[in-house]
Amino acid sequence: MKKVVLDATIRDGGLINNHRFDDSFVKNIYRMNIDAGIDYMEFGYRASKKLFDSSEYGKWKFSSDEDIWDIIDGKIGKCKIAVMADVGRCDYENDIDDFINSPVELIRVATYIEQIDDAVKMIDYIIRKGYRVTCNIMAISRCSTENLVVALKKLKKLPLEAIYIVDSFGALYPEDIDKYMNCYMDSLSGTDIKIGIHTHNNQQCAFANTMRAIEKGAAWLDATVYGMGRGAGNCYLELLVGYLSCNKYKISPILNFIQKDMIHLREKEIVWGYNPYYFATGLFNIHPQSAIEATERNEEDFLQFYLNSRCI
Amino acid sequence: MKKVVLDATIRDGGLINNHRFDDSFVKNIYRMNIDAGIDYMEFGYRASKKLFDSSEYGKWKFSSDEDIWDIIDGKIGKCKIAVMADVGRCDYENDIDDFINSPVELIRVATYIEQIDDAVKMIDYIIRKGYRVTCNIMAISRCSTENLVVALKKLKKLPLEAIYIVDSFGALYPEDIDKYMNCYMDSLSGTDIKIGIHTHNNQQCAFANTMRAIEKGAAWLDATVYGMGRGAGNCYLELLVGYLSCNKYKISPILNFIQKDMIHLREKEIVWGYNPYYFATGLFNIHPQSAIEATERNEEDFLQFYLNSRCI
Repeated sequence: MKKVVLDATIRDGGLINNHRFDDSFVKNIYRMNIDAGIDYMEFGYRASKKLFDSSEYGKWKFSSDEDIWDIIDGKIGKCKIAVMADVGRCDYENDIDDFINSPVELIRVATYIEQIDDAVKMIDYIIRKGYRVTCNIMAISRCSTENLVVALKKLKKLPLEAIYIVDSFGALYPEDIDKYMNCYMDSLSGTDIKIGIHTHNNQQCAFANTMRAIEKGAAWLDATVYGMGRGAGNCYLELLVGYLSCNKYKISPILNFIQKDMIHLREKEIVWGYNPYYFATGLFNIHPQSAIEATERNEEDFLQFYLNSRCI
Repeated sequence: MKKVVLDATIRDGGLINNHRFDDSFVKNIYRMNIDAGIDYMEFGYRASKKLFDSSEYGKWKFSSDEDIWDIIDGKIGKCKIAVMADVGRCDYENDIDDFINSPVELIRVATYIEQIDDAVKMIDYIIRKGYRVTCNIMAISRCSTENLVVALKKLKKLPLEAIYIVDSFGALYPEDIDKYMNCYMDSLSGTDIKIGIHTHNNQQCAFANTMRAIEKGAAWLDATVYGMGRGAGNCYLELLVGYLSCNKYKISPILNFIQKDMIHLREKEIVWGYNPYYFATGLFNIHPQSAIEATERNEEDFLQFYLNSRCI
């Protein structure tokens, strides 16, 4: 199965710093992605400025075509460009230009399973605009198989590139991945739609779950540099590229970017990665927000947090 | 398959701090292991004082019966006690007393595959003394299947509790675990000897590889609290206990120990865990020593380190 690797650092990492990255950081990571042979780089969210105050967020909350053109100096390189559009947060009829005018190749429509009918409408609109589209079903660990089968039945009628398993809560173990992969494979058989995987590291399974999905036939693979992403972070891009062991992808540009552009972020209190709070929310299959807040409070009361999370 | 969980924190963590732990730390972790229902706690190495200068190491390099009796106040609790004895580093004929006099239940004989004949002699001697014994084959990622089959053929004649797959270099992916598990299962069929798994986190696969080994039939499971162990550390005990989801094991005592006794170790520059140096040594299947030294130098020259490691 041909793999598609997508670097989601700016998008998922933007959830740590309110989408405020220096332009040089974004330029350097785009350069890195080209040099490393990565297939797609996700620049950020395409959120609506009618719904979110642009003075409260960095520009990658909105990821306008203009801001992307600026970063890439008007030239699209070998790494294709993606943005994420959340159902209910994107004014797609006004904020998505025709494909021909945009630097964006791929729009990833992120949805909760309850919003699937709205997602279908939005995907249909965006495909008609000329873009490639994936659908990313969030918080999958909270979805019943029955609801998932219904959702996939609706989605499979659309000419999507891929439908993603998104483990937003970092709740899945590798054996759970088998279950979702089987469900997706069965539901999508007879179509050209590929399966994607996006993981979180609450229980240190982000990379393991990605590998498991690959073993079972997933083709679209999300990762972030040094695992930078919300809460416990994501699958590490350097680990994934090492595992794929494919001449197309290069490790050196990624390590170079980590040492030159990323390591010093930690001094600015931009923090991600496993700790016992994230373990607890992953274990109990709940949203990581409480763990993010506990990490920020830095009181190290892991036991009480665990006990509280167990009761939710 | 009934599981046996072994906490190796003092032994593998001792490789970070030259085996110097405060008595209160060791007492508290023994208490924790009893409260958490952990089957075994490994106290440290039983190295020979003829070979290692006892002024250069903490007492858990030698783990004498006397020092263990002191910690446990002469009373053995529900958590059984293990020590590790390395082939060639343990004067077993002089330093291992009769089982009846010792607080130790289990002696883990650690060996490289080239030393297997010496390991067999040593295991035979220790079993005759009355102890339970496991054999831990280190650096397994460097062993050929042929040599492994020969070694297992020799070991299977002994009444061992378990023979371990030890991924000392953190080089294995979950699919590699399948290969070693199959080799062990085939070689040990017809015996009562169980299979053990001890992992390192160089590529963030320590927990994943432990889960994979469990799926394939491993019964003896090593872990360390918060992953504390040499280099990138080990499988996290709290994650493993969460995964096993078995009433016998409790998470709360482990989190309580982390917050009260472990977190502050990091302020003393006792550091472990994933970084890009460990990724490189794991990826290239080499000993982590160069990565440990690079981490201590703290120069963050990940790219050059990777390029150097690739050439080894």
